[in-house]
Amino acid sequence: MTTVDLSHHISAEARLRKPTAMKEIWRLASRKPNMVSLANGDPPNILYPIKRVTFEIASPTGDDPVAAWKEESSSTPTQVIGATRDGPSVLPVKKAMQYTNGAGHVETQKAITELVHAYHHPPNHVITLTLGNGDAVTKCFRLFGNPGDHFLADEFTFSALVQAAIPQGIKWVPVRMDDGGLVPEQMEKILVNWDAARGPKPHVLYTIPCGQNPTGSTLSVERRRKIYELAQRFDLIIVEDDPYYFLQFPSSSSGTDTTYAPSFVSMDVDGRVVRVDSFSKVVAPGMRLGWITSNAQFHEQLVALTDSSSQHPHAFGQIFLSELFGPEGWQPPGFDKWVRGLGMEYKRRCDFFLDLFTKEVASTGLAEAIPPEAGMFVWTRIHIDKHPRYRNEVAGSEGARGPRTNCKKLMEELFDTCLDEGLVVMPASIFKVGSDPQYSEPGDSIEDRLNYFRLTYCGTEETMKTGLSTLGRALRSFFAS
Amino acid sequence: MTTVDLSHHISAEARLRKPTAMKEIWRLASRKPNMVSLANGDPPNILYPIKRVTFEIASPTGDDPVAAWKEESSSTPTQVIGATRDGPSVLPVKKAMQYTNGAGHVETQKAITELVHAYHHPPNHVITLTLGNGDAVTKCFRLFGNPGDHFLADEFTFSALVQAAIPQGIKWVPVRMDDGGLVPEQMEKILVNWDAARGPKPHVLYTIPCGQNPTGSTLSVERRRKIYELAQRFDLIIVEDDPYYFLQFPSSSSGTDTTYAPSFVSMDVDGRVVRVDSFSKVVAPGMRLGWITSNAQFHEQLVALTDSSSQHPHAFGQIFLSELFGPEGWQPPGFDKWVRGLGMEYKRRCDFFLDLFTKEVASTGLAEAIPPEAGMFVWTRIHIDKHPRYRNEVAGSEGARGPRTNCKKLMEELFDTCLDEGLVVMPASIFKVGSDPQYSEPGDSIEDRLNYFRLTYCGTEETMKTGLSTLGRALRSFFAS
Repeated sequence: MTTVDLSHHISAEARLRKPTAMKEIWRLASRKPNMVSLANGDPPNILYPIKRVTFEIASPTGDDPVAAWKEESSSTPTQVIGATRDGPSVLPVKKAMQYTNGAGHVETQKAITELVHAYHHPPNHVITLTLGNGDAVTKCFRLFGNPGDHFLADEFTFSALVQAAIPQGIKWVPVRMDDGGLVPEQMEKILVNWDAARGPKPHVLYTIPCGQNPTGSTLSVERRRKIYELAQRFDLIIVEDDPYYFLQFPSSSSGTDTTYAPSFVSMDVDGRVVRVDSFSKVVAPGMRLGWITSNAQFHEQLVALTDSSSQHPHAFGQIFLSELFGPEGWQPPGFDKWVRGLGMEYKRRCDFFLDLFTKEVASTGLAEAIPPEAGMFVWTRIHIDKHPRYRNEVAGSEGARGPRTNCKKLMEELFDTCLDEGLVVMPASIFKVGSDPQYSEPGDSIEDRLNYFRLTYCGTEETMKTGLSTLGRALRSFFAS
Repeated sequence: MTTVDLSHHISAEARLRKPTAMKEIWRLASRKPNMVSLANGDPPNILYPIKRVTFEIASPTGDDPVAAWKEESSSTPTQVIGATRDGPSVLPVKKAMQYTNGAGHVETQKAITELVHAYHHPPNHVITLTLGNGDAVTKCFRLFGNPGDHFLADEFTFSALVQAAIPQGIKWVPVRMDDGGLVPEQMEKILVNWDAARGPKPHVLYTIPCGQNPTGSTLSVERRRKIYELAQRFDLIIVEDDPYYFLQFPSSSSGTDTTYAPSFVSMDVDGRVVRVDSFSKVVAPGMRLGWITSNAQFHEQLVALTDSSSQHPHAFGQIFLSELFGPEGWQPPGFDKWVRGLGMEYKRRCDFFLDLFTKEVASTGLAEAIPPEAGMFVWTRIHIDKHPRYRNEVAGSEGARGPRTNCKKLMEELFDTCLDEGLVVMPASIFKVGSDPQYSEPGDSIEDRLNYFRLTYCGTEETMKTGLSTLGRALRSFFAS
């Protein structure tokens, strides 16, 4: 079913998962037309007490629909989508609210499949509905992870998901990043020099390619190609977690000329990319309905796991999405207009933030912002080596592993200084992927590179103004200490 | 936190689960008022493209609201519940659609907590929102199950969930049932006679107490008390999966005098019951939002697992439930009216079914129906020993384990005969919990007790008529062979 046989990546637990015996009965039941069934266990749909579900949503009209929408004036155009008990909606209430298998309703799958093809043209992939990226990524970890397996990840990443795999027995191997995100050569080095005594060689890479959380970095096309080649060479699965894909910025603040970076799945001739998408940043986090794009074999495994755990996504979200992309909704062109508008909006916010940052923070000479091209975050480098109490014991410690500087401690103090001044930031330490000290390279401890804060431009202008002037003040006061 | 310390039941995997480091940051952030945050990673809620969410639902007015509703006439009373961006709804869209932790929104939790207290008065328990019973029960299995653990279950049960735990390493031990459901004395026998060589003694019982799937049985109050005493004596956790609780029948077809059987959680002074509830049968399966009632320690573990997997329930369902129980919705008295109406409706359907069964099936003398007191299913005993080819090798095989009859094979043939006649039924074999033959009692093989079909009265009257007359015909034809 896949171009390359990748079934050896499937975990022992997933292999033990059997389709439920009931499915076999339904298969037998469909062998003849007009079968009468006394077998089903579903409540009669005429008893569902819901007659109609409606959503009043923004209308993506005009050149900048998001800018118009956020004003919330009564004249902002809206449209109503939804479903009635029997239709004529795309997914009538009576149908939407029945049990389905883990794959969800075909109507919703179809809408999402069209979306995926429009943006990614994946060579030979199918979609699986999920309950958002947390659900999706942790399901991928269950699908590929045996206790004792090593997985690669960006050295700073969304730690909640990385941590979620640890109780299951996954051991994380961080890959060095620079301002452009994960460095392919560093990944290659890990794989080439892998010490078999350490256990099985990593066979999965978990990465966030656009507007990475927390570093805001977006992988260049060249890096993506190199990483994919490495995945082929070392037989890796790439779990591409891309919630900020649709928050990529246009080239200019007023433009709608966003060029979306080619996703890993778009270049995945082997079927070794499992791409995870979300509506949390496009619609709202409470959607809890996203999707995975993968090869058909992994799709079947994901559906089996869904049937054995969370079950299929909620009907309300499936109605919402089916209608959003249907004839009464935005349809794909309206969706495209909305997400390009979102890209413009986030770029405007980012530009506003960076201007303030230059005035209030960079002017201290104690910190610099790494400008993102997508997403919500500015990775902010603190020039911790300028602190009077900074120590670097590099001389005389060649070959020694572990931290050489007091970067970690000073950053903790700076974090506390910010709190004392009334400002909350996200310290880099929260996002670091722990590595086995025995196998970290001498002189390359992540503890010496924790001199970053993750800042966001998601707040109001007032928040950004107060926040950044507080940060400038806190830096000056701390570096004077 | 619990009356009895039950923390030793928590699995190794669950113990390894750590609260995310980000939570600690938010805790620090709340130590002073008026903190400014550049730390959050949530999209600004003014960008959510949803202005209003509404649900037109049945109005539970009149004596028999479900009977009125299923007619679907335009005069059937309805009411509209929902939320706007900023309220004044119970859970405004902007709030509902943000990220929350695994426990969900406090507004929804509060509504469900009141519901639980009205029906169960649990001694010292809290609720956790879930994504329905599949999600909830499998999370309980992850919470309590180590590889190699033994769990007890009704010998016939909803096999999809039991099967879901097998890849995780759970070994199932079936408990003998009779027409009244799980037999406490049989459970006691298993626990008293447990052979340590077999591995750890069972420490979890998974059971469906009302309108059990597939047997339709409802445990008597006496059995419930005995089972709870056994749980105390042998230190068991009871996972009480009760989706049919609100489908308990009134004493008379026209009455609303349903007396709800006391749940295990209502008698749970120790905190050893984890009760699982669903809206799938009360509202609709597509809801995918239910809840667990448990002690506070297990609640915390369940929230941590939710944060590490599915994440919190969808906003649309949380809006629906918050408003359903709120001032514009049914409120608890309206809900009570609706569920009592459902009990009446299912009893009417069941009575209709049993009348037909007497005429079309029981009249053959080849099968009998075991009348349920709740739920959707009639467990139908086939008098397989009346078949001309029935064999029972009991004589001469005393002490031998394994099946003594050809019950299984004949039932497979009968199932095929039904299919050939155009009828789908659910064979008992689908629901049986496999046991280790080495430890099954001589002369007590479940293979000799597979002479049941699970039938349902969820279909239309037409379906029941055609289905049951087909079953009568199939039985006559098969037993004449």
